[in-house]
Amino acid sequence: MRLGELSERSGVSTATVKYYLREGLLPPGRRVSATQAEYDEEHLRRLRLVRALIQVGRVPVATAREVLAAVDDDSLDPTTRLGAAVWTLPHGPEPDGGAPETPPARREVDALLGRLGWSFAVAMGELSPAYRMLVGAVAGLVRLGYPHDVEHLLPYARAAGQLAGPEVDMVASRATPGEQVEAAVALTVLFEPVLLALRRLAEAEESARRFGFPLP
Amino acid sequence: MRLGELSERSGVSTATVKYYLREGLLPPGRRVSATQAEYDEEHLRRLRLVRALIQVGRVPVATAREVLAAVDDDSLDPTTRLGAAVWTLPHGPEPDGGAPETPPARREVDALLGRLGWSFAVAMGELSPAYRMLVGAVAGLVRLGYPHDVEHLLPYARAAGQLAGPEVDMVASRATPGEQVEAAVALTVLFEPVLLALRRLAEAEESARRFGFPLP
Repeated sequence: MRLGELSERSGVSTATVKYYLREGLLPPGRRVSATQAEYDEEHLRRLRLVRALIQVGRVPVATAREVLAAVDDDSLDPTTRLGAAVWTLPHGPEPDGGAPETPPARREVDALLGRLGWSFAVAMGELSPAYRMLVGAVAGLVRLGYPHDVEHLLPYARAAGQLAGPEVDMVASRATPGEQVEAAVALTVLFEPVLLALRRLAEAEESARRFGFPLP
Repeated sequence: MRLGELSERSGVSTATVKYYLREGLLPPGRRVSATQAEYDEEHLRRLRLVRALIQVGRVPVATAREVLAAVDDDSLDPTTRLGAAVWTLPHGPEPDGGAPETPPARREVDALLGRLGWSFAVAMGELSPAYRMLVGAVAGLVRLGYPHDVEHLLPYARAAGQLAGPEVDMVASRATPGEQVEAAVALTVLFEPVLLALRRLAEAEESARRFGFPLP
């Protein structure tokens, strides 16, 4: 397909497609004349991933380039390749190592992971940006005096644990390792706002059930 | 307590406390001399909420002021008061009403809410910012060609639904309606990164189980 069709099918303007090509986020098309190039389904899929990262995940262009390098590195084993791609996504601010609430937060997180038997997370520890993100989030609860013990964290871990099965199914259903990594990154980013919006709706629903139901 | 103790116990610098006082986010203390004022536990609690909103929730100062007005408005019934406070929190970009993917996204969301029997959410519809956030998030899945049907959304709704019970328990355990609203806002904001971090850890765990377990 030509640039115009690639733009139309992806919903990304031709100016933005050209920008992604210049920035190396999209591989060049096959040149068919001095002024025209031909693109294929691979370009379309890559363009959708770039769009998910930049427009939904708010990932900076330089970070998107790192994610794509991990997606494309077929010398890595599958878990590392998936992990490397997801690990380059933004994870919010790092926990403040010097703050007094960080050590108790880390103890609760370690106790939680031990209780869950999440041996991969235990083995990775501080190396994992999601672990550091969790320590930072729990430190916020500690600092502000809200419940942060294992019993209060467990329902969130169980909810997340239930989602992981269907999520990895969606990834595993893709045909090639490259497409799997692409799907893992896109689904991680795209389902975050779905989950947060549903949590707010569920809270309002439960709150209305308990405290009364004012109609608009 | 004096300003210094209020600052120490809340972990908010005296300069920031003074800024919040000037901006009306914190009510003035009881004046005890020309240069000194006395603060109480109520000030400490309010300061922790302001901090949760601004430092964790990344809520702009003007928005924090609106949230606090809803927290303080005891003329409202409990559900509306809780709702008004949580509704003023940021919910991400509004869905693009003119985009071709918005109507199919809205249809899936409505089908999902009907299937769940979430009658409060159905009654509120577009009025609820969490509903609009969900439509926008599902529109992102539609636009990028990822699964977005009711069957794929249900696991997220069920996970969120399970969390709502313990969450409303935490809110209901507070002594006064004002404290309940305060807890609802703080817990909504503070547990979001906990949930997202645990989801990423659970995905990595499941991925390691299925695709192999590379140790660092």
